[in-house]
Amino acid sequence: MSVSIAHLGPPGTYAEAATLAYLRTLGGDTESQALLCPYPSIAQTLYAVAQGQACLAVVPVENSVEGSVAMTLDTLWQLDQLQIQQGLVLPIEHTLLSRASDLAQIQTVYSHPQALGQCQKWLERYLPSVQLIPTNSTTEALKYLEGDRTSAVITSRRAAVLYNLPILASAINDYPDNCTRFWVVGKEPSPGGSYTSLAFSTPANVPGALVKPLQVFAIREINLSRIESRPTKRSLGEYLFFIDLEANASVASVQAALSELATYTEILKIFGSYNVASLQL
Amino acid sequence: MSVSIAHLGPPGTYAEAATLAYLRTLGGDTESQALLCPYPSIAQTLYAVAQGQACLAVVPVENSVEGSVAMTLDTLWQLDQLQIQQGLVLPIEHTLLSRASDLAQIQTVYSHPQALGQCQKWLERYLPSVQLIPTNSTTEALKYLEGDRTSAVITSRRAAVLYNLPILASAINDYPDNCTRFWVVGKEPSPGGSYTSLAFSTPANVPGALVKPLQVFAIREINLSRIESRPTKRSLGEYLFFIDLEANASVASVQAALSELATYTEILKIFGSYNVASLQL
Repeated sequence: MSVSIAHLGPPGTYAEAATLAYLRTLGGDTESQALLCPYPSIAQTLYAVAQGQACLAVVPVENSVEGSVAMTLDTLWQLDQLQIQQGLVLPIEHTLLSRASDLAQIQTVYSHPQALGQCQKWLERYLPSVQLIPTNSTTEALKYLEGDRTSAVITSRRAAVLYNLPILASAINDYPDNCTRFWVVGKEPSPGGSYTSLAFSTPANVPGALVKPLQVFAIREINLSRIESRPTKRSLGEYLFFIDLEANASVASVQAALSELATYTEILKIFGSYNVASLQL
Repeated sequence: MSVSIAHLGPPGTYAEAATLAYLRTLGGDTESQALLCPYPSIAQTLYAVAQGQACLAVVPVENSVEGSVAMTLDTLWQLDQLQIQQGLVLPIEHTLLSRASDLAQIQTVYSHPQALGQCQKWLERYLPSVQLIPTNSTTEALKYLEGDRTSAVITSRRAAVLYNLPILASAINDYPDNCTRFWVVGKEPSPGGSYTSLAFSTPANVPGALVKPLQVFAIREINLSRIESRPTKRSLGEYLFFIDLEANASVASVQAALSELATYTEILKIFGSYNVASLQL
């Protein structure tokens, strides 16, 4: 049976690269029969799974330089029933594509805000006076190169091959160890594994509202590999907390912690337990 | 003696509005003799104070809808010696300025990414097919209105008055309780008050690295009003943590917590204790 997988498009994005590398780890029929479905925004890839138009979505969660992808966290919180099936870590190497003959010709650089942020120092050094214009994805930006020798786009090496565009500069990311973490998300129960992700809101205006949820894990020596706050958007000082545990929710002490946690939180969403795979580009 | 205060410019930004409202709370000579210094980026306002070109900087920390201002946190971490003198909460009401005669004429909307994010639903509803272009500040965007009836800018009502530009739509923010929190930052020791802010990195690859720092506060029942993680930019999974305590660092139990905290952290920076004022536009 073929599996449809939603990702940020058009083809050539890092989300597509993560999806293809993930399929290679599965091999066999799954790899050969998978149907990749590009969507114009991260939110739409998640809606596609929630509404049954795709089986899975591969969405970026955080980058090692630019941090969390707010749209992924905010959309996952809004949708119900989505579970994490697998974590993926993809190394990121940015290239500059352009029809210009050299850097001096370039007046405008287009890319996804995360990619612009990850190449900030390189841009300040080599293209200090260009205009930077954010786009919905690194490959959506490629349309601006059509018939224009003063524009450039930051994207993957694979996009250069796919769209037959010249590479003007390679490995332009400011930090060589640039990686992005993705989640494979679906409606199936998560398979279990060494990481558990969850999010919760706390009752408003209760002093110490965050202390108790954190103590639940601390007293059981369960390590938090990540904690991220996002505004509830209701009023200043009210947050949702996204937490990754280095633990499997099937373990008794973790189950006890999650039961106790539910008594201190307003809304608690557990996105499941899963393993993380390191991918190769 | 006149006080020079750096803020994100050009004049008419919310950072300038926060600075003016802050000066009104001080009154007298300080208000009348203060010298406002607009800078093209938030990072540059903080560098200006670190390098002695300005006495104070007023910088946005977080918005109730869009969350943390990463540039403020990342720059404060890099610079030494800066202390928080005062917290400010400013209500935000966005307006749409344009020389267009109606919304149908508009093809492009310019503003700071935070303002575009805070009006996302309004834009999807009333201007679904326009191009959104981020700028360094809400008022920097105004230059695009010159001689162009197809462009609009999201900015403050005050900017409309300052630059004599027509208001096409008012109160367009998606959430009516939209507020931004600012910090007044300087080189003087912080004055003390009911909030304390700090940031730390934890030793790399030590399991449980975040549990111990959080326990330090939990066991003393010191409430964390906010916790925010930012990547160290070295490698995926290594974070800095920015924490706001609802407590004054001069209290003995808080001092004890901070001393113990230093034994579990790699680098610990305490930005001081201060009070928070609610401002009126």
